[in-house]
Amino acid sequence: MIKKAGILGGGQLGRMLLQAAANYPVETYVLENDAECPAAHLCHHFELGDIRDFDAVYTFGKKVDVLTIEIENVNVEALEKLEAEGLKIIPRPSVLRTIKNKILQKQYYQQHQIPGAPFIITQNREELAQHADFLPAVHKIGEGGYDGKGVQLLREQADIAKGFDAPAVLEKMVDIHKEIAQTVAISESGATALYPPVEMLFDPTLNLLDYQLCPAELSTQTLYRVEAIALTVARNFKSPGLFAVEMFIDKNGDVQVNETAPRVHNSGHHTIEAHYSSQFDMLWRIMLNYPLGSTDAILPSIMVNIIGTDGHSGPVKYEGLEEVLKIENAFIHLYGKKETRPGRKMGHVTILSNEKQELLHQSNRIKHTLLPKA
Amino acid sequence: MIKKAGILGGGQLGRMLLQAAANYPVETYVLENDAECPAAHLCHHFELGDIRDFDAVYTFGKKVDVLTIEIENVNVEALEKLEAEGLKIIPRPSVLRTIKNKILQKQYYQQHQIPGAPFIITQNREELAQHADFLPAVHKIGEGGYDGKGVQLLREQADIAKGFDAPAVLEKMVDIHKEIAQTVAISESGATALYPPVEMLFDPTLNLLDYQLCPAELSTQTLYRVEAIALTVARNFKSPGLFAVEMFIDKNGDVQVNETAPRVHNSGHHTIEAHYSSQFDMLWRIMLNYPLGSTDAILPSIMVNIIGTDGHSGPVKYEGLEEVLKIENAFIHLYGKKETRPGRKMGHVTILSNEKQELLHQSNRIKHTLLPKA
Repeated sequence: MIKKAGILGGGQLGRMLLQAAANYPVETYVLENDAECPAAHLCHHFELGDIRDFDAVYTFGKKVDVLTIEIENVNVEALEKLEAEGLKIIPRPSVLRTIKNKILQKQYYQQHQIPGAPFIITQNREELAQHADFLPAVHKIGEGGYDGKGVQLLREQADIAKGFDAPAVLEKMVDIHKEIAQTVAISESGATALYPPVEMLFDPTLNLLDYQLCPAELSTQTLYRVEAIALTVARNFKSPGLFAVEMFIDKNGDVQVNETAPRVHNSGHHTIEAHYSSQFDMLWRIMLNYPLGSTDAILPSIMVNIIGTDGHSGPVKYEGLEEVLKIENAFIHLYGKKETRPGRKMGHVTILSNEKQELLHQSNRIKHTLLPKA
Repeated sequence: MIKKAGILGGGQLGRMLLQAAANYPVETYVLENDAECPAAHLCHHFELGDIRDFDAVYTFGKKVDVLTIEIENVNVEALEKLEAEGLKIIPRPSVLRTIKNKILQKQYYQQHQIPGAPFIITQNREELAQHADFLPAVHKIGEGGYDGKGVQLLREQADIAKGFDAPAVLEKMVDIHKEIAQTVAISESGATALYPPVEMLFDPTLNLLDYQLCPAELSTQTLYRVEAIALTVARNFKSPGLFAVEMFIDKNGDVQVNETAPRVHNSGHHTIEAHYSSQFDMLWRIMLNYPLGSTDAILPSIMVNIIGTDGHSGPVKYEGLEEVLKIENAFIHLYGKKETRPGRKMGHVTILSNEKQELLHQSNRIKHTLLPKA
């Protein structure tokens, strides 16, 4: 019997999940409140509705055999009721409850002795103001942050006005040497598979992932530490799923967990072409209760996000697309979004090569050539 | 402006085309007379209709900016009218007119001095009977053959009753050393790109492609000859498109063209994972008037077709799927067909490896393990 699988959210992650789904016998459902979202036309059954709404999620969940998410910001209460009624949900709703609230997430790491930056929980801006001596720090809102929103850098006392007047985490600034992400796959039976860690560079203004190299350059000792920590983070959730664990290597060489996404994630896009089992393929294997795939790299890779150009809002045109399409070892993914906005994720490009210099050169060229403009 | 692209036919080729389409800004349309066909749910607009029907094809063509096919057996008259009215069709209708009729196709090769087996055109079985001295030969029906149907091996006089009582080609049997296929891409501006030739093995009963190795093992001299012949075949059609040219290397080492598919083709499925630009990606580049992609292999590969098991008809179950999913360097594609039938193409598996023995071993294992049964 062909399984029915639902995805909450219809953005680019859903889109790429559905591209991978077409390799398997599965009937796909998507819930999203935009009939023109990137994933809408690639599923068997598209349902218009708000993933944050209890009834919409509950009704949707009743139609499928297995359910996943492409964003944490969904109605967890409905998922808990569905799970209690026997629906398989990947990841389990308890994971989402922990992760979607930055305070609970930070407490989870603490509870499991997972290394991370020291932090203080602040309930409002007044409380925040009492911790000026804790700066420089990062203020992260408890609920509702996503894609760089809900995060504020507070360097000095004068920045406190930029902090959140709501429950939040004030996290000591880490003296970052490297930023990496490690994806862990966990099957229903508890089998695990680790992708090679990737090394990330962020756009300092938008806090969006800019480009990332795979594998990350790490000493064997650090690699083992990173893998052990990522496994500890993922396993203690006691849930099947994919877990992208973002970590810092600080200037002392210590590993500190930043945050975790319990789903397919921007840091795994390169796996589509560069690895035997992509993160999207892997999530289907987990959902359909198939054996886990191989996380081995076919070749080293780099991934560049294609982000809406500053000062351009409206129907998108891709400046430089022809030139980038001529690059022989580049794989282009445009997400089919009709409108561009500054900072909006419009696509990504993955480059494969055994030569690190070639990867860096081409990714930098692509970043400055392929520009979504209005 | 986002281009509207139509595909005539909604089988597995359409399905894989649509998986690749999701990397580009394109609005997709499919025409097929089965609402549950493999491609139906992966396009923006699915239209129920018969691709052999003039009105259905004409009306469909009026909705799009560019049109392609996944099978030759379409209404060419409607395409000719659409082309006369300015629609871009890839390949051009004149190509389909030549190729879908095996007699015209054979005459095309003759006209362009392309080497092939000697042949006689027979109008009916009575005429065929006059050429018993030409046997052993292959009898190919002029119109309507597909996937092994419309082809008969006539070894001796007694077989003549199996020949077609309709216009057909009687082709001298080639003493085959090797069977290969060479895909040529031609852009609108006339740029060409050649994939490495693949080496094919057929199931002798069903005449379905069984498995295929890339690259084919050929001497440099034969490779150059193969490439030159394939280019001659493709270029003389005077049309952009993808052309899979099937050839025999006979026991004397001579190259002889068997037939050509002017579209994405079973012999190019391995390019999805094994090459920088897959045949599906390449056809979108041609349709959207982008630069051609790189035909280079990332790794050598082998492809196995997953074919409905003899004696099994009905709702499909995949015996051995778990075992094949555990093979680390195998990529599984199941086409989402609900019913299996003996000989029906249900999926394919591609294996990547630098070791030819590993490719042969795994493909053989997969062929005997992954069995679509009812």
